[in-house]
Amino acid sequence: MTSHPPLDPGASALLTDLYQLTMLKSYYERGMHDTAVFEFFVRKLPGARNFFVAAGLEQVLEFLENLRFTDEELDWLAGRPGFERGFVEQLAQLRFTGDVDALPEGTLYFPHEPILRVAAPIAQAQLVETRIVALLQLGTLIASKAARCVLAAPGKLLVDFGLRRAHGAEAGLLAARAAYLAGFDGTATVLAGKRYGIPLYGTMAHSFIQAHESETGAFLDFARGHPDNTVLLVDTYDTEAGAEKVARIAPQLAREGIRVKAVRLDSGDLAEHARKVRAILDRAGCKDIGIFASGGLDEYELAKLAAAPIGGFGVGTALTTSSDAPGLDCAYKLEEYAGIPRRKRSEGKATWPGRKQVFRVLGADGRLEHDILALHDERQPGTALLQPAMRSGGRLAPALELGAIRAYARAQLAQLPEHLKSLEHAEPAYRVEVTPALRALADEVDRRQRALIESDVPAG
Amino acid sequence: MTSHPPLDPGASALLTDLYQLTMLKSYYERGMHDTAVFEFFVRKLPGARNFFVAAGLEQVLEFLENLRFTDEELDWLAGRPGFERGFVEQLAQLRFTGDVDALPEGTLYFPHEPILRVAAPIAQAQLVETRIVALLQLGTLIASKAARCVLAAPGKLLVDFGLRRAHGAEAGLLAARAAYLAGFDGTATVLAGKRYGIPLYGTMAHSFIQAHESETGAFLDFARGHPDNTVLLVDTYDTEAGAEKVARIAPQLAREGIRVKAVRLDSGDLAEHARKVRAILDRAGCKDIGIFASGGLDEYELAKLAAAPIGGFGVGTALTTSSDAPGLDCAYKLEEYAGIPRRKRSEGKATWPGRKQVFRVLGADGRLEHDILALHDERQPGTALLQPAMRSGGRLAPALELGAIRAYARAQLAQLPEHLKSLEHAEPAYRVEVTPALRALADEVDRRQRALIESDVPAG
Repeated sequence: MTSHPPLDPGASALLTDLYQLTMLKSYYERGMHDTAVFEFFVRKLPGARNFFVAAGLEQVLEFLENLRFTDEELDWLAGRPGFERGFVEQLAQLRFTGDVDALPEGTLYFPHEPILRVAAPIAQAQLVETRIVALLQLGTLIASKAARCVLAAPGKLLVDFGLRRAHGAEAGLLAARAAYLAGFDGTATVLAGKRYGIPLYGTMAHSFIQAHESETGAFLDFARGHPDNTVLLVDTYDTEAGAEKVARIAPQLAREGIRVKAVRLDSGDLAEHARKVRAILDRAGCKDIGIFASGGLDEYELAKLAAAPIGGFGVGTALTTSSDAPGLDCAYKLEEYAGIPRRKRSEGKATWPGRKQVFRVLGADGRLEHDILALHDERQPGTALLQPAMRSGGRLAPALELGAIRAYARAQLAQLPEHLKSLEHAEPAYRVEVTPALRALADEVDRRQRALIESDVPAG
Repeated sequence: MTSHPPLDPGASALLTDLYQLTMLKSYYERGMHDTAVFEFFVRKLPGARNFFVAAGLEQVLEFLENLRFTDEELDWLAGRPGFERGFVEQLAQLRFTGDVDALPEGTLYFPHEPILRVAAPIAQAQLVETRIVALLQLGTLIASKAARCVLAAPGKLLVDFGLRRAHGAEAGLLAARAAYLAGFDGTATVLAGKRYGIPLYGTMAHSFIQAHESETGAFLDFARGHPDNTVLLVDTYDTEAGAEKVARIAPQLAREGIRVKAVRLDSGDLAEHARKVRAILDRAGCKDIGIFASGGLDEYELAKLAAAPIGGFGVGTALTTSSDAPGLDCAYKLEEYAGIPRRKRSEGKATWPGRKQVFRVLGADGRLEHDILALHDERQPGTALLQPAMRSGGRLAPALELGAIRAYARAQLAQLPEHLKSLEHAEPAYRVEVTPALRALADEVDRRQRALIESDVPAG
């Protein structure tokens, strides 16, 4: 039995890779305290995806604001080989005092576009890499998956049912948030409702029906206990037989003042069952009882069910695990140190050097026309997407309401070119131009680095 | 700025689906307090997987031991529609007082075999469903993926590098634990080292090299700062040129008492680079400098690299997202209530009713021969896999040392039939027999339920 509830592991400065700490030790020892500029970007669109939706910035800012090592963590570190007390004492002082520029959550983005830039003393900017990558990857994965579901099921109620298949507590909560942000209507995850104010949905499981000797009895018990939230699960034994029972008890419940809102289907051929169930309900005069469906749904299944008489869907595993793409080829890369642009040249992993900005140009129809990847201080047409979010470790504005982010994301999706709304890989891909000045900088960095590498012949 | 560190969301009783609470309300109102028996199992092996490794039980037991609603959570609930104060007051008393039987962590298992059984008053057994499914799914996914990596790279050092791609804080920590349990040698995740005592690995990122004007200078700085942990990343600009520099500085470092343990490759054709780097190091007399590789690895890549002169691997995204199968078709199903066996009949989702046990029969070679899925009180040949873990809400034994679980898992993998060690889908699948008594019970439950359903004609 623990006497105190355990602390959120996401809040620990030790939720990082060991190499961050070994590098910090060297930076401190060598007096390397200059400003490092890191940018986070995704290298490519996975599978059939045609765009990304940014999410996770709010969690990054919270993490940076609260970054510090606790005494207990420092004591543990000081007992480990390679981490002397002097180094640990420097860690005790570490706070995040840097600047952050980022795409607002809900913004559409594309490969190689930085969505977050950190400029801070190198030790700070380095230490936070692991957590920043994790939060921005997860946010992007789920928000983008949710957006695909929204595009596949226009006008339908969409609810996140995926907590049980999410990879742990934080994944479930952040998935609920990212899905709602990207256009879902709510979640089944109670704690996400409490933390983020997301509308909650949920009624009963098969076990509820099974625990009653009679299915009708279970329906009546539930309806009378939840007169304002009566959705009845009808597929425990036989979907159509279940629907017949609902049709038969609906008038009785109506006399008691209870309206059955919907039945839920959770197995079999959902389109076929929905048509049969609709007919059963309509014949019985229950035209106002809706049909809600769940069970193994993803954006492709939603698209197939577009014509079925189903008003809403619960989406689980595919959403919260981002099943088609559970990870992204993404990176948080050093682009500048001590005022000098840098460029990694590893095969297949080269980056654009320097502080950058993304400009977005809209067409006459108000849709995305193309983006421009530029140096941060270039003047370019269009709107600059990276916005100041934090200066000297302090937020520039309080956290946005999630509802406001959701409205913005909806407007963003409305700006998506029609062919990129496809669930299949779309050609041509969205155009991201690289400015001549950025290309020139990349060449210059290459030349300088090559010269340094060639002259870098150590004493034997 | 938060004045108190945030609490672990995984410890909250509200980390559950709303329908658990709506069902609880009905159970309380109807006075349904009888014992419910739920079992967790996986329906099928995903993709090319041939077995599962059980993991996550320890987290389930911790969760059940500490289950309670806080006053703050109850106040929030009481303000929501449908949750009257009387119900909320009953929730305040809720503790887990039930029994748990489970497969020890590290045990191999197969589809339809229950790996955990909960027997408790129905409200308790129901409420914990969401969290139990999440923890056992995640544990199984990662431990099984890690075991495949171990089978693909016998004798090689394997390190979890995947925190940044894991789906959040808990996923990263539990992935580190599950991977170590299944045979990995360590993790880069510092907090996993602290929490679980897992050996930590890690040295430097490309940014460390880039932040120095000279690659050689970066190597020397790092080696002198970490004389006992000198692994040098050589692919930032040009892998072979990087290795040449290491070869040139190694003698100098040796004179300072510093041994370079290894170089790390992180991009390009790892087998090809490893051969070239090995030759460079050998020519320079640095035969004792090892080669460690990372970058986009999974079990298939590890198998391809078996012959390359690489002594160890960092495995990231594929491991911690369980990339080939980020979710499982698994369930926690009601099999008995108030002493009566139950069976869900939903299409494609039927379950075996009643309390069950899994017996494992070994062949003459000591390998797994077949399993028997039986009623819990049947006598069968072989070893009963489900073991008592908790009685009346209390653990029967303290948590096992992770090292002991790891040794057990290693012994389990050694018992795996040779053809099931394949990374490809293996035929024949492992045989799980269902006893005649269990089949007879299923038939009997079907007959009883059919009779009840047919007589279940509600008043109009």
